[in-house]
Amino acid sequence: MKKAKVKALVLDKLNNAPVVLLEIEGTRKILPIWIGACEASIIAMILEQTEFARPLSHDLMLNIIETLEAVPEKVIINKIEDNTFYAKLILKDLTIPPEEHASSFLEFDARPSDCIIIALKSNIPIYVASEIVNTQTIELEESHSSDKEDEAFKRFVENL
Amino acid sequence: MKKAKVKALVLDKLNNAPVVLLEIEGTRKILPIWIGACEASIIAMILEQTEFARPLSHDLMLNIIETLEAVPEKVIINKIEDNTFYAKLILKDLTIPPEEHASSFLEFDARPSDCIIIALKSNIPIYVASEIVNTQTIELEESHSSDKEDEAFKRFVENL
Repeated sequence: MKKAKVKALVLDKLNNAPVVLLEIEGTRKILPIWIGACEASIIAMILEQTEFARPLSHDLMLNIIETLEAVPEKVIINKIEDNTFYAKLILKDLTIPPEEHASSFLEFDARPSDCIIIALKSNIPIYVASEIVNTQTIELEESHSSDKEDEAFKRFVENL
Repeated sequence: MKKAKVKALVLDKLNNAPVVLLEIEGTRKILPIWIGACEASIIAMILEQTEFARPLSHDLMLNIIETLEAVPEKVIINKIEDNTFYAKLILKDLTIPPEEHASSFLEFDARPSDCIIIALKSNIPIYVASEIVNTQTIELEESHSSDKEDEAFKRFVENL
């Protein structure tokens, strides 16, 4: 399992579909995940730090989690089946005593987009299963300056 | 406080904006609530009983609520401020012993659209504060047959 972070949210021009690009930490590997337009607009708002006066769905979800004495722990993009990525949201149940640590983690089947939104909003890590890193990522071209690196990324996005 | 149910999801043609129409039980009063396009598409999927292979955001939210030992109890459209409706989602915390019944209800500030989606998905009642019923609803024309009633409703939607 490898740690990843949101590198960018871009449009796949062929289908006009939004794609989240996850960068695998310590590598030049990029994992593109196609997501829905609604989820993309929420991610865009978070990345642009747009404030919204009323609680959005994931804010409500996080309020509920907190009030029911749990905390988001991490998210895992754990498998791909029929071109659909699956993810898991892991919560820690704070009502479980520390000596039963192992049983305090709760797993929820979820879409990557919901998981990424929750990870961004609550600042928890995103992990990607090694098999997905090995089979579904695209390697950015090697470069020796950060300018060239930006260029390589731009080219990658353009060819998506 | 009056009970209400989702009568229809329509488009306000002037702004091309989706509107949920709530019918106040036992009356001919309709409460129109303008909602976002994303929330409208989820409500449309529920009303059309469209199945979705993966859990959507509100399915994830309901799974979390259930696993953390709570249940959705009701939703209340409770106030309007600056043309924005406010709502509350009420959960019942199942870990509170019955003798402390009063403290087992948890209230969450939420948008009406999230509340209506949760109400539809978990089959809990929707309530509307009396002040909103008195000031924000529109009375459907009187009619004496169900055909005419349908017509009155259609006319109402067309003039929205």
